[in-house]
Amino acid sequence: MIERLAIVGVGLLGGSIALAARAGGLAREIVGVGRDRQRLEAPLRAGVVDRISIDVGAGVEGADCVVLAATVSANEHLLEAIWRGVPASALVTDVGSTKRGIVAVAERLAAGRSLGFVGSHPMAGSEKSGWQVARADLFRGATVIVTPTDATEPRAVKGITALWEALGARVSALDPETHDRTVAAISHLPHVAAWALVDAVGRFEPGALAFAARGFRDTTRIAAADPPMWRDVLLANADAVRASLVAFRAALDELERLIAAGDAAGIEALLARLKSAREGLA
Amino acid sequence: MIERLAIVGVGLLGGSIALAARAGGLAREIVGVGRDRQRLEAPLRAGVVDRISIDVGAGVEGADCVVLAATVSANEHLLEAIWRGVPASALVTDVGSTKRGIVAVAERLAAGRSLGFVGSHPMAGSEKSGWQVARADLFRGATVIVTPTDATEPRAVKGITALWEALGARVSALDPETHDRTVAAISHLPHVAAWALVDAVGRFEPGALAFAARGFRDTTRIAAADPPMWRDVLLANADAVRASLVAFRAALDELERLIAAGDAAGIEALLARLKSAREGLA
Repeated sequence: MIERLAIVGVGLLGGSIALAARAGGLAREIVGVGRDRQRLEAPLRAGVVDRISIDVGAGVEGADCVVLAATVSANEHLLEAIWRGVPASALVTDVGSTKRGIVAVAERLAAGRSLGFVGSHPMAGSEKSGWQVARADLFRGATVIVTPTDATEPRAVKGITALWEALGARVSALDPETHDRTVAAISHLPHVAAWALVDAVGRFEPGALAFAARGFRDTTRIAAADPPMWRDVLLANADAVRASLVAFRAALDELERLIAAGDAAGIEALLARLKSAREGLA
Repeated sequence: MIERLAIVGVGLLGGSIALAARAGGLAREIVGVGRDRQRLEAPLRAGVVDRISIDVGAGVEGADCVVLAATVSANEHLLEAIWRGVPASALVTDVGSTKRGIVAVAERLAAGRSLGFVGSHPMAGSEKSGWQVARADLFRGATVIVTPTDATEPRAVKGITALWEALGARVSALDPETHDRTVAAISHLPHVAAWALVDAVGRFEPGALAFAARGFRDTTRIAAADPPMWRDVLLANADAVRASLVAFRAALDELERLIAAGDAAGIEALLARLKSAREGLA
């Protein structure tokens, strides 16, 4: 049982944590923290948070658990104020899509004052954003990756893992570097491909959009993701995203080479291998 | 009312046409034609086709309407036998994903004997294939592109359009060249991107597949499409697919250049433009 849960950024993820924590009776008090008082009033009126604050220091004061759910760069900037504002016994995590940056900030701060921080990444986003799309069941059955390092306090891994499990998620652990390569491969690169597909139609045959059917819609759904959030993600994970693009271009080149050569058997064998890899996803 | 509808290839598309025609009472007799008698027996037992034939000439004899629903290359090879086998008054179409090839074959044959052919492309596929996934409502609300040229008999456009509308589809007309560029942009290129995404994960960070969430699944769903069918499509439309890849690579390059430059405002502006283009899809 959490006495005081402070959620910094009450959008899709932060709002869903608040909804699920409230529904599950996981926290005695929930504080919503954000930059914009007006936006915080909807979850307050809904009774999902008990108090709101536009001052991070005041908002997290006395909290025994803090979840940072703003953008990746805002989380990194806010972490120092949180580090100063919470009791030494507090557990702190973030829900950003990249982990090397915030973990490095946390390790720098931990050199001055020990605190129970571990990074988290719930694999349960949406191309939609904001409190109005938050759902109490967003994390049910979802995977959350926590990213401890040798410097992480074991009680932080234990406590934050327990929080996610109480919200209905399955928790896996990866080191921050492997995490960032993993999400580059299965999330950031697919976003880049989806944006480039939408862009390519405009460059190549703009009238074609009028005929887009289910295949195009599914493949490019994530191209409607939130631009400011993804600007941050792409910059925070730029090296891993660019390394994944090297592999992506090599894959495009291989298939195009087979097409250019008219290699029917080679194309069929490659597509059969990739179909099988795709169908291997549970 | 069609007296005798012959469907060559009773898989997802051909089978769905048979189911919808039977349900709507559009044809007095439906003949299923294919290479494999055993595979034809399921739709025969289900009463969806009245007769089956593994001989194309015999199967289409006396038909007043023929739908070619085998692979793109098989359709092109079969068209000559159909041309010889049907009455001069018959209407003939195909449902292949590329149109320049079969339209060229039809125009060559029409120089010898006039016949009511127009190409069709129902935008209502699936990554699954075969009779067992056919559905009577597959074409309801779907778009079908017909591809007449100056040489096409008007009665063919009129009759085949009426058939699709009776099956519940909306019909648009494009010339074969524009059609093939359109489907390269909104279907073939997204398939290529989906295959390359699956391939890239294997090349870059194979363990990442274990963490694939909804974004990756949606973006790569079509990577499980039927390899022999897509081998044909990629080869039949090779030039348009490769031209679309030029646009796709240019789009990837532009976004990567902004990431490499750390151009936060440029990334956000580009993503906002593409989000808006994606959301413009009805």
